[in-house]
Amino acid sequence: MRESRLLDHVARHASRSESVIVPPGDDLAAIRMPAGPVLLGVDQVVDGVHLDLARTDLEAAGWKAVARCVSDVAAMAGRPSASLAAVVLPQGFGEDRAIRLFDAVRDAADRLEAPLVGGDIAIHATETGPLVLSITVLGTPGPAGMILRTGARPGDRLCVTGRLGGSLEPGEGGGGRHLSFEPRVAAGLALAEILGPRLHALIDLSDGLGRDAGRMARASGVAFELDAASLPRHQGVDWRGAVGDGEDYELLAAVAGDPPSEAAGVPCSVIGRVVAAATPADAGAVRLRVPADDGPARTVDVSQSGWDHRGSGGDDERTEP
Amino acid sequence: MRESRLLDHVARHASRSESVIVPPGDDLAAIRMPAGPVLLGVDQVVDGVHLDLARTDLEAAGWKAVARCVSDVAAMAGRPSASLAAVVLPQGFGEDRAIRLFDAVRDAADRLEAPLVGGDIAIHATETGPLVLSITVLGTPGPAGMILRTGARPGDRLCVTGRLGGSLEPGEGGGGRHLSFEPRVAAGLALAEILGPRLHALIDLSDGLGRDAGRMARASGVAFELDAASLPRHQGVDWRGAVGDGEDYELLAAVAGDPPSEAAGVPCSVIGRVVAAATPADAGAVRLRVPADDGPARTVDVSQSGWDHRGSGGDDERTEP
Repeated sequence: MRESRLLDHVARHASRSESVIVPPGDDLAAIRMPAGPVLLGVDQVVDGVHLDLARTDLEAAGWKAVARCVSDVAAMAGRPSASLAAVVLPQGFGEDRAIRLFDAVRDAADRLEAPLVGGDIAIHATETGPLVLSITVLGTPGPAGMILRTGARPGDRLCVTGRLGGSLEPGEGGGGRHLSFEPRVAAGLALAEILGPRLHALIDLSDGLGRDAGRMARASGVAFELDAASLPRHQGVDWRGAVGDGEDYELLAAVAGDPPSEAAGVPCSVIGRVVAAATPADAGAVRLRVPADDGPARTVDVSQSGWDHRGSGGDDERTEP
Repeated sequence: MRESRLLDHVARHASRSESVIVPPGDDLAAIRMPAGPVLLGVDQVVDGVHLDLARTDLEAAGWKAVARCVSDVAAMAGRPSASLAAVVLPQGFGEDRAIRLFDAVRDAADRLEAPLVGGDIAIHATETGPLVLSITVLGTPGPAGMILRTGARPGDRLCVTGRLGGSLEPGEGGGGRHLSFEPRVAAGLALAEILGPRLHALIDLSDGLGRDAGRMARASGVAFELDAASLPRHQGVDWRGAVGDGEDYELLAAVAGDPPSEAAGVPCSVIGRVVAAATPADAGAVRLRVPADDGPARTVDVSQSGWDHRGSGGDDERTEP
């Protein structure tokens, strides 16, 4: 396998889009963007960390890599514009599989309206180097401008799209929702359209409601109060799963007044409210009211509940409330 | 080591630039771009493939990763706007070294006027996963618009900036020019300014003059005739090294009429000319006239001379003329 042959395939089979002025094959690609701010970010999928390639087909791997990046565009209530892919292939990956992976990434990028305009391919020098797939996404703000995670204010309602938890459980296709989720771009844009300036803050739930709500609360300098009974959960998931399983890729919004009950066909559930931080150290707290069930009724801080990718042992750690 | 701690460091110590509207720390960054085309590309540095981390300090690794990406902006005669970094760290890399690497990338990005506005950090799940550093760069066209590699026409002169060859040899600092080169952004812009529409095509020399000239010739549907005696070489480098060593990161330009003898203080040397392809199969040929030295005077096709990163054995292969 030669990189140059793969790059030829990439150049010949790149996304076709009117916004692409210079397609892959030159030193850089060029795209047409409307005047105004450009949103941009990068996200990686590493075999063994974000998925297990031995149990994941290449199409799902490509989808996940692009979709989690596009989910960040949804979390700004923006529209994707274009994407780039950089991949490091294991030795012996094989040209056929490399091309399948590229096609999967391009198909995902096309479906998610983030045409793939460029990339880079390398092959590990060591026999054990794992697949690394890094996706860059560009986007533009939606109808309400850029919605950051810093804008939640005391009195806002907190609402979440879709349902939470259990994303790593094998689903109907066997792979689990963490591989097949649909980024909430349309729902984010619909919330921006419906709510306008009443949409104060937005974040996508990648590491778990607890941890990501904690990030929004901390960034906004406020505290959150959530109600476990109101969390929209997938079947078979308890409140702990809804708070800490992670990889939901739903949106959490802070809204002034009433949020809509749905956005672009996706249900929106009110799950709590924003309160002023009692002390500076209280900013970032996420207090979940838990009804009496396997214990007495109580309030738990779930701002650390979810996933953090650790380095010391290489394992991911899930912190349960 | 926790990703979240590193990401906090990144958010606190990101590049400061007036063009950055939303710095790292939200779902995506946002930058201000002038109206018009956006140039974009991604490039990777993988330990064992593009450098040997056991013999390379982190500052040089960070510099190389950003500089080779910015070199692609120079190769479009453009200006860098912003950069993003995605890194996969080996297990046991250590937080101090991770922060040093980030600071090196950010310092390089600042010096190269491509402020670092975002990134992603992951840690390998296996003990042997190598450092992977993937840099995305955005840019804007310079005064002559986007200069592609497709525009070389019969009759054009071919010129090259700086000197060629020997980039992997240990230099004064011990690391070799492939780690410390200066991307030719200013020279590319100066060529565009001086030549205007006479600047027909541009490419940067990453894989070697032979191979990269072949790419430009093929993309333009023409053939090149080069003169070995006129190749500007670094000390101790013969014509083979100038053609095939690679990692020069100088610019090769196809110019109508006379090129300037220097651009932004960098010497420009005429090394050959563009001719019509004799047959369709001749497009992409790079014929080098070699004087009698270690053999008789002759003409050699060097369009395959240089580096290709191969997969089969994981080794890089250099093809000599």
